Amino acid sequence: MQRKSFVGMNCSIARSLEEVGEWWSLLIVREMMQGMKRFDEFQKELGIARNILTARLERLIELGIVERYPLPDRANTDGYRLTAKGEDLYPVIVALMQWGDRWLCAKGKPPTALVEHRTGQPIETLIVRSKGGKPLSYHDVRYAPGPGATKTTHAVIDGRNERVLGHSGNRAHRHGS
Amino acid sequence: MQRKSFVGMNCSIARSLEEVGEWWSLLIVREMMQGMKRFDEFQKELGIARNILTARLERLIELGIVERYPLPDRANTDGYRLTAKGEDLYPVIVALMQWGDRWLCAKGKPPTALVEHRTGQPIETLIVRSKGGKPLSYHDVRYAPGPGATKTTHAVIDGRNERVLGHSGNRAHRHGS
Repeated sequence: MQRKSFVGMNCSIARSLEEVGEWWSLLIVREMMQGMKRFDEFQKELGIARNILTARLERLIELGIVERYPLPDRANTDGYRLTAKGEDLYPVIVALMQWGDRWLCAKGKPPTALVEHRTGQPIETLIVRSKGGKPLSYHDVRYAPGPGATKTTHAVIDGRNERVLGHSGNRAHRHGS
Repeated sequence: MQRKSFVGMNCSIARSLEEVGEWWSLLIVREMMQGMKRFDEFQKELGIARNILTARLERLIELGIVERYPLPDRANTDGYRLTAKGEDLYPVIVALMQWGDRWLCAKGKPPTALVEHRTGQPIETLIVRSKGGKPLSYHDVRYAPGPGATKTTHAVIDGRNERVLGHSGNRAHRHGS
């Protein structure tokens, strides 16, 4: 089938998953966010095989998520750290952790908590909100053409809205509002 | 090695990735959030092979993320919808989309935008914040024992903090504050 699928044309989530939708990649990113910087530290913390870790690090460097840098205190060892693109994955990591905290821990009691360093207070739970700060469920949100929209984008979005909502661009709420 | 790795003991992100750290699973969840409910809709939108889609849906049902339900307008077809656990993945999906929007679209111009249905306004960008609402980078946040912490959790967290921060529980900021 040559038809352009929604996944193919929509860069954001599908491409994000192509880059980081692999178990180890996000765990390596998380280790760097926790201050780990050396190959042997990642290996020990994650219990990952050397060849897999090497491949994942190379891939993360290729994608511009991670960069190698000389460790000042170790002449023959490079360190690894996040680029701005990698640092920007923080909300993804926190959203996954908070979901796990809520749904996957024994008796809903997570063994660890993320706290603000300065105050020791737990951080806020990530919530999708309107510009005005109102919490939104996915029922309150729809796709619209973005700044990079082409004719095809418009057609696909209209097609989806029509099929799913019964009409284009004017979504009926399923759960009141 | 029998040593308990941090990944092994920390339920949240590692277990989350075990459940949804697979390309198709999150895309199927996203389709449901966009109002798709039938097997053939997922198949068409995602361009996914039937056998893979069947396996992923079964797995999502097993994990309690998706449930099957009778479609009122189709006698012989079941629909699929998110459970509360599945609906709660919304911030993960939005965080991935927003990261993709920022880093993976041609010229930084995403073809699609998420807008609040009622107003047509783009939704807020997800930002990790303190309880008081202050934006936090990962440099401002550390792990602490949570409500389900055991002696092992305490030891592992202290060990990590000591190794990474040079002392336990009192993290030096790398980027000012």
